[in-house]
Amino acid sequence: MVDDSTGRIVADLRAWVAQAPPGARVPSSRALVARYGASPVTVQKALRALGALGLVESRPGVGTFVRAARAVRPPDYSWQTGALRAPHARIPTLATPMRAGAPDGVGLHAGYPARELLPERLVRAALVRAARRDAALVRADAAGLPELRAWFAHELAATAPAGVVPPAPRDVVVVPGSQSGLSSVFRALVGHGRPLLMESPGYWGAILAAAQSGAQVVPVPSGPDGPDPDDLARAFAETGARLLYAQPTYANPTGAQWSPARAREVLDVVRAHGAFLVEDDWAHDLGIDTAPQPLAAHDDAGHVVYLRSLTKSVSPSVRVAAVVARGPVRDRVLADRGAESMYVSGLLQAAALDVVTQPAWRTHLRGLRPQLRARRDLLVASLAEHAPDAHLDHVPRGGLNLWARLPDATDLDRLARDCAAAGMTIAPGTEWFPAEPAGPFVRLNYAGPDPDRFPDAARAIGAALAAQRDR
Amino acid sequence: MVDDSTGRIVADLRAWVAQAPPGARVPSSRALVARYGASPVTVQKALRALGALGLVESRPGVGTFVRAARAVRPPDYSWQTGALRAPHARIPTLATPMRAGAPDGVGLHAGYPARELLPERLVRAALVRAARRDAALVRADAAGLPELRAWFAHELAATAPAGVVPPAPRDVVVVPGSQSGLSSVFRALVGHGRPLLMESPGYWGAILAAAQSGAQVVPVPSGPDGPDPDDLARAFAETGARLLYAQPTYANPTGAQWSPARAREVLDVVRAHGAFLVEDDWAHDLGIDTAPQPLAAHDDAGHVVYLRSLTKSVSPSVRVAAVVARGPVRDRVLADRGAESMYVSGLLQAAALDVVTQPAWRTHLRGLRPQLRARRDLLVASLAEHAPDAHLDHVPRGGLNLWARLPDATDLDRLARDCAAAGMTIAPGTEWFPAEPAGPFVRLNYAGPDPDRFPDAARAIGAALAAQRDR
Repeated sequence: MVDDSTGRIVADLRAWVAQAPPGARVPSSRALVARYGASPVTVQKALRALGALGLVESRPGVGTFVRAARAVRPPDYSWQTGALRAPHARIPTLATPMRAGAPDGVGLHAGYPARELLPERLVRAALVRAARRDAALVRADAAGLPELRAWFAHELAATAPAGVVPPAPRDVVVVPGSQSGLSSVFRALVGHGRPLLMESPGYWGAILAAAQSGAQVVPVPSGPDGPDPDDLARAFAETGARLLYAQPTYANPTGAQWSPARAREVLDVVRAHGAFLVEDDWAHDLGIDTAPQPLAAHDDAGHVVYLRSLTKSVSPSVRVAAVVARGPVRDRVLADRGAESMYVSGLLQAAALDVVTQPAWRTHLRGLRPQLRARRDLLVASLAEHAPDAHLDHVPRGGLNLWARLPDATDLDRLARDCAAAGMTIAPGTEWFPAEPAGPFVRLNYAGPDPDRFPDAARAIGAALAAQRDR
Repeated sequence: MVDDSTGRIVADLRAWVAQAPPGARVPSSRALVARYGASPVTVQKALRALGALGLVESRPGVGTFVRAARAVRPPDYSWQTGALRAPHARIPTLATPMRAGAPDGVGLHAGYPARELLPERLVRAALVRAARRDAALVRADAAGLPELRAWFAHELAATAPAGVVPPAPRDVVVVPGSQSGLSSVFRALVGHGRPLLMESPGYWGAILAAAQSGAQVVPVPSGPDGPDPDDLARAFAETGARLLYAQPTYANPTGAQWSPARAREVLDVVRAHGAFLVEDDWAHDLGIDTAPQPLAAHDDAGHVVYLRSLTKSVSPSVRVAAVVARGPVRDRVLADRGAESMYVSGLLQAAALDVVTQPAWRTHLRGLRPQLRARRDLLVASLAEHAPDAHLDHVPRGGLNLWARLPDATDLDRLARDCAAAGMTIAPGTEWFPAEPAGPFVRLNYAGPDPDRFPDAARAIGAALAAQRDR
């Protein structure tokens, strides 16, 4: 996050302070000016920042000194064990895809596209413009910026067939990222102790959100064509569930895209059981070979609750997504959002709207396709050549990830360790299964790491797998 | 939110489109250029924006037309009633303090300071700088920006007495506003069906967050000195609760500030019951006559979970707050945040850190005191003069609000309607009580509306109360 000259000096001095004894004298401003080739103002700002962080203290007329650490006895927190009780679900403090990779390594584990795939200039310009508008200083409406809600509604309405009443801006609730939308939808529409159907394998974030809500997850097997309608009907009938969570387009992790026929069948099952389909259209802007066709555009009876995110296509820092929900369900979701976080930063909403309504946004999305395609194809080819034991059931037609099946006897922990030793972070597939995994899988992100390193990465995975085979 | 010339044209044309018949021709670009005195580029941008919102469609070479509304049959959402079931708690879609007031009215109901009380130049400059840094384009750490966590820890540590181990940056979890922090704390530390002690009257947002979490709220009466330690001990003992939520400094709505002795007594009761005290230090930057002394600074055994927000002092659009929690409880909170929203926009975090580490931030806070004091004193004096029936139990020494007790027989709904008719929005006190209100109260924000209108506002309240008295 540190990229200006003050920041660089702060980072450097922090490192120095960390190993200096308490009370040590920080070099004089003059010495620092000389060392960093920075202006006295910059050096003073850096020293003030260190002071604000509690790392140094200045004694006027004497100098600046490393702050003496206070005497520390290890506190005893054991009483908390009783107060906290066992949680109703074990939720990790940090899921694998959210971990930081090695600084110069290849991060195949993360869920975000590389910075060069983002519309950087559009985002920066939009943020600067938003910083100068009222949006920077006023509280936004609970349901979101009216114009942004209209944009989300229009995006979905644009693919609605004739005869289907398109969604209206009032059906849209802006949320600070689709994870927040998922959490609210699960809490508001399922709730503690109730059953929730979910594709398996399915999105790890949804598995965590379901656990947090206290819902009872009922896994429904899903493959490259989506869930089998008979399986699904059985799960609804057996459990009395009223909600299915799914990613019909470029599912994470499998990359599956439901055919129009399958989508109709699933929607029919959902309707027949008086249920909701939560359609998480996370990769709407990340198509490669196909164009996403949201199921929600085909439903005007309020069965599909639609989630659309801009985090992965605009910027991970512009935390803006939308829940489109029609009927009383929209009020239930809005009430949960109000209780959870009241409203979404108007600045981020204004910036998001600015980006997606620029003509350059469409140009950017068109240019993204060939880049994603080249990356995907290179990783597929590298694996085929160097890691033939990593089997791809199918090549995804969009999204960010490959989902590789490994040989049955694969020790995933050992694989992850061996890859880490070679500078590569991988995400064992375990976290994408609500229950036991159906086998050893690994999810590999082709959109994040440097493609020049794909062949090496594939070689390392291949070697690690070969070592397990030969054992 | 609209403050530039394109925005003004869009807003104006939206209003025109709203009353125009479908298919109506939008005036030509040339005519619009003339009408608005804007450049052709600006007019084109406005028309494109209207197109992106789905309001008009352009036919190249012909013109731009109001989009024909598709035939609409009212959809039937009644099936959702069965799928949604009754909620475990009734949560309003919009709490009174979050409602928009009348455009030219006096909004005494809202919970935010006026824009002129915000450090506008600091905020805009910080946002512009952040827009140009990496923070605008990368995903932030799950627990928050390290430097911002260090700042929050240092702020609290600065008031820790000798002998108390101060909190460390690792004890800090950055959250997108304190409402999100509250929601996570209640979910993670209390959970569905468990008892949660709360001051009554108490903060409406906390009441909603508790309802959303499924916790059973146990109200503990609280007055200008905070809760009575015996009442509190009894509530812990009777219910087996392990958590008390409170605002010890400038409590919302009462403005109460606990004395140091009362704080010690409450903390002793909390410790004796192996419980957590959630200290919501929402108004830390909004002191008038006193300086806030967080209880959390006196506890290094992990009993106090501390919430500090910047939303009301930096900007409502910079949704950044922190939970400081020591011991295993920090992991429990962090896990809930991960499941709820993964991380907080790095851009907003960088901007917040920028603002609070500028020397001008301290200057701003010093300048804020006399402004809040003048506003508070003017509203107090106006009420005393023009609305003597609105009784103030005590004058708050900080914060944003007065809490007035009204005569027993007051009809609050009628009072709100009469005030609205006079252009004034008030917040009946009902929403600050977890159960039945202890009497008719009203919360009046002196920091938001224009102080020049306080005498008129007080007159209107006085007249409305007098009308009820005379009935």
